[in-house]
Amino acid sequence: MTPDAPAPFRVGLLGHGTVGSAVAELLPESADAIAHVTGLRPEISGVLTRSRGDFDEILAGSDLIVEVMGGTDDARTYVTRAIEAGKHVVTANKQLLAEHGEELWALAREHRVQLRFEAAVAGVVPVIRVLQESLTGHPVERLHGIVNGTTNFILTQMAATGASYEEALAEAQQLGYAEADPTDDVTGKDAAAKMAILARLAFDTPVHLSDVPYEGIAHLTTEDIEYARDLDLSLRLIGTAERIGDELAVRVHPAFLYKGHPLASVEGPFNAVTIESPAITEITLSGPGAGGPQTATAVIGDVISAMIPPAQTPPTRNTLGFVDDVASSFYLHVEVADKPGVLAQVAQVLGLQGVSVKSVVQKGTGTGARLVLVVHPVLESRFYGAVQLIAAKDFVTAPPRAIRVIDEEFAG
Amino acid sequence: MTPDAPAPFRVGLLGHGTVGSAVAELLPESADAIAHVTGLRPEISGVLTRSRGDFDEILAGSDLIVEVMGGTDDARTYVTRAIEAGKHVVTANKQLLAEHGEELWALAREHRVQLRFEAAVAGVVPVIRVLQESLTGHPVERLHGIVNGTTNFILTQMAATGASYEEALAEAQQLGYAEADPTDDVTGKDAAAKMAILARLAFDTPVHLSDVPYEGIAHLTTEDIEYARDLDLSLRLIGTAERIGDELAVRVHPAFLYKGHPLASVEGPFNAVTIESPAITEITLSGPGAGGPQTATAVIGDVISAMIPPAQTPPTRNTLGFVDDVASSFYLHVEVADKPGVLAQVAQVLGLQGVSVKSVVQKGTGTGARLVLVVHPVLESRFYGAVQLIAAKDFVTAPPRAIRVIDEEFAG
Ligand SMILES: NC(=O)c1ccc[n+]([C@@H]2O[C@H](COP(=O)([O-])OP(=O)(O)OC[C@H]3O[C@@H](n4cnc5c(N)ncnc54)[C@H](OP(=O)(O)O)[C@@H]3O)[C@@H](O)[C@H]2O)c1
Ligand SMILES: NC(=O)c1ccc[n+]([C@@H]2O[C@H](COP(=O)([O-])OP(=O)(O)OC[C@H]3O[C@@H](n4cnc5c(N)ncnc54)[C@H](OP(=O)(O)O)[C@@H]3O)[C@@H](O)[C@H]2O)c1
Repeated sequence: MTPDAPAPFRVGLLGHGTVGSAVAELLPESADAIAHVTGLRPEISGVLTRSRGDFDEILAGSDLIVEVMGGTDDARTYVTRAIEAGKHVVTANKQLLAEHGEELWALAREHRVQLRFEAAVAGVVPVIRVLQESLTGHPVERLHGIVNGTTNFILTQMAATGASYEEALAEAQQLGYAEADPTDDVTGKDAAAKMAILARLAFDTPVHLSDVPYEGIAHLTTEDIEYARDLDLSLRLIGTAERIGDELAVRVHPAFLYKGHPLASVEGPFNAVTIESPAITEITLSGPGAGGPQTATAVIGDVISAMIPPAQTPPTRNTLGFVDDVASSFYLHVEVADKPGVLAQVAQVLGLQGVSVKSVVQKGTGTGARLVLVVHPVLESRFYGAVQLIAAKDFVTAPPRAIRVIDEEFAG
Repeated sequence: MTPDAPAPFRVGLLGHGTVGSAVAELLPESADAIAHVTGLRPEISGVLTRSRGDFDEILAGSDLIVEVMGGTDDARTYVTRAIEAGKHVVTANKQLLAEHGEELWALAREHRVQLRFEAAVAGVVPVIRVLQESLTGHPVERLHGIVNGTTNFILTQMAATGASYEEALAEAQQLGYAEADPTDDVTGKDAAAKMAILARLAFDTPVHLSDVPYEGIAHLTTEDIEYARDLDLSLRLIGTAERIGDELAVRVHPAFLYKGHPLASVEGPFNAVTIESPAITEITLSGPGAGGPQTATAVIGDVISAMIPPAQTPPTRNTLGFVDDVASSFYLHVEVADKPGVLAQVAQVLGLQGVSVKSVVQKGTGTGARLVLVVHPVLESRFYGAVQLIAAKDFVTAPPRAIRVIDEEFAG
């Protein structure tokens, strides 16, 4: 907080659905942090839906327009008018950019405003930023993406549970991972629009939705997936963009991935993109590809970048202390004499110290036995206290070995 | 290429070792592409090593200084002097920032120049950019990283081959993944410096190298790894930074990861970082964490960002055509009558069409048999031609099913 209140930065919001309402909720929550970095305090200056708000009024009262209404008719008109009025625009609308991107980007250059669109592809996964900023000037050779969360959820669900396509789709709809009308997702059209945008940036050549052949997943069977398992393959809907000689191939189709491929482990509604370029080998970015708050986070990242490029590392705002005793799960390896009751005694020491055991493996070693335990999260001081007590037991034949365990918390 | 030649942007290079020589090689190669985006053409204006170049002369003749010499004495002096002279600085030096970051960032703010450091953590993996730009204003809850490629190579090698720590280290040295003196890597000190930088950005609080306790990997045994396999865990050197109440815990130690954790599949010299924040769930970024060209790519990305923030999507420079026949590997599923010679006939058709088989599974289905083949990459037209011929055979009892296969090309 500086003594002078930061000047306002007015954000007009077109659309107040899944993404728009999350932007309206999250932007005020980060306004202080954003003011700290940019010197300007963002505020929502108006909201347009089919039933409320007036576009002309919102436009006149905003420094930047966020377009999260979808569609290619009104959205195109409003984005065009915002740019012509000299306002920055942030959009999450892949169909709009895959069909009219060149026209809108050219208009933005002409009017010297920013047109940002991180949220249009793979939600909060920062693939647009990486292609436009980190990799500028580096020739991309190929790009593979899982850019539709609905179909990835359906395919991983079919593989995990043996469900049919229809059953997995119904589950996706119930969980909110698929819309009531899933056509654009399951036919591959949504993914094709995103691949058109990625290919445009990666290969610096115009790519229109109509240049991208696509194939969906509705015809896939659990049988395909089961056979593939024998061959150590996993089935995904993959977008590919690659340079072949002097031409480009951009397409979307179901494909099997070998287990070692970085996209093979992307599960559930997650998205991921692998970018291959000679100098860098490859980088992979993954995370949630959709959802209101996630997409809104990407939108807000773009708003901040448009407000002022973070040219500097701002001063810190916190001075947090450092924890000196942290809870952790542990692996514990103890060599013991092979006597009855040894495991019970080890378990008793742990229990008395409040350390709870998650799993145990005991193996004979010829001359003695070896206990390997994994314990539930516990303060380190408490755990190491128990280990010291165990180490002092006469049946322990070598110093116990402890290594931390990081729990499976993957949200995908 | 615009009719007017773009103005030069002079880059002074401090250091000409692994990273510096790669910058000197790659920057001129991307100069045209960079000029296209920024309007300025970067050129190397001078090079400093222990045996050549004069710092004062280079400073006077440069718009931006790239510091890739390492160390914390001369590097600190030169970076300070460059900032004071009003020049942007790009550095790959994690020790410098983990020890003197606050002082240098404050100086850069004071002199209104940029101090960029993507290459200092996880090489070309754009974690600094994502923390500073995409996630500004979003509270980070926790961050886990594999930020040292040397130790990750050693640990995955021990797991894959049963090699001892000493053997795996020797192999890493031979392959250039470990230096002759690997102390900073294997003790965890290098990772601790990187975690200090990441925690500083994620939690917006000063974090100094001395705030980060670290533990190395030299004491780990193949036995630990083998037992862990029974428990479905994989062993990695993990940096963790997390907020616990109003305090922070930042540390580096070996840790086991459950199989589903996004970092568990990061192999070889690769780096990866998982960022957890309530709004976004988590995102994971992975790629090569070191190496001359990779690190130089990150340095050049920073140079471009410092030259001019890419406020706009530049016009395309290419107009590539689209390939209409692409080579791909395929999975082919054929239901056949259970007669002798059927597999041979299928194989013959494929062979005549130039389609070469990689693997086959044949299974009885009670009434007939099912062939599942994977073929080596072949032009789609050729493959589908063969499938059509096979479909026409009298022993084929249902339309064959074909799905593309993406080959295992993971460089890790
Ligand atoms: N949902 C996601 O997870 C996600 C992820 C990435 C990108 N996106 C993209 O983000 C955009 C918005 O998606 P969403 O899921 O938030 O959509 P949504 O829930 O259907 O919300 C759309 C909003 O826009 C308004 N709107 C639509 N057409 C309008 C028009 N012609 N004039 C005025 N207002 C109009 C609607 O108003 P009413 O309320 O009056 O109908 C509604 O408030 C789309 O381009 C989508 O592709 C969404
Ligand atoms: N190597 C990687 O993959 C990698 C990855 C990420 C970050 N980094 C960081 O990048 C930096 C450079 O690493 P590197 O591997 O390229 O190092 P390097 O191969 O050892 O090269 C260092 C260069 O700096 C010069 N130099 C060192 N001290 C100097 C001094 N006091 N005055 C003038 N010149 C000096 C050396 O000159 P001489 O040739 O005369 O000795 C040499 O040209 C380090 O901060 C490192 O941590 C490296």
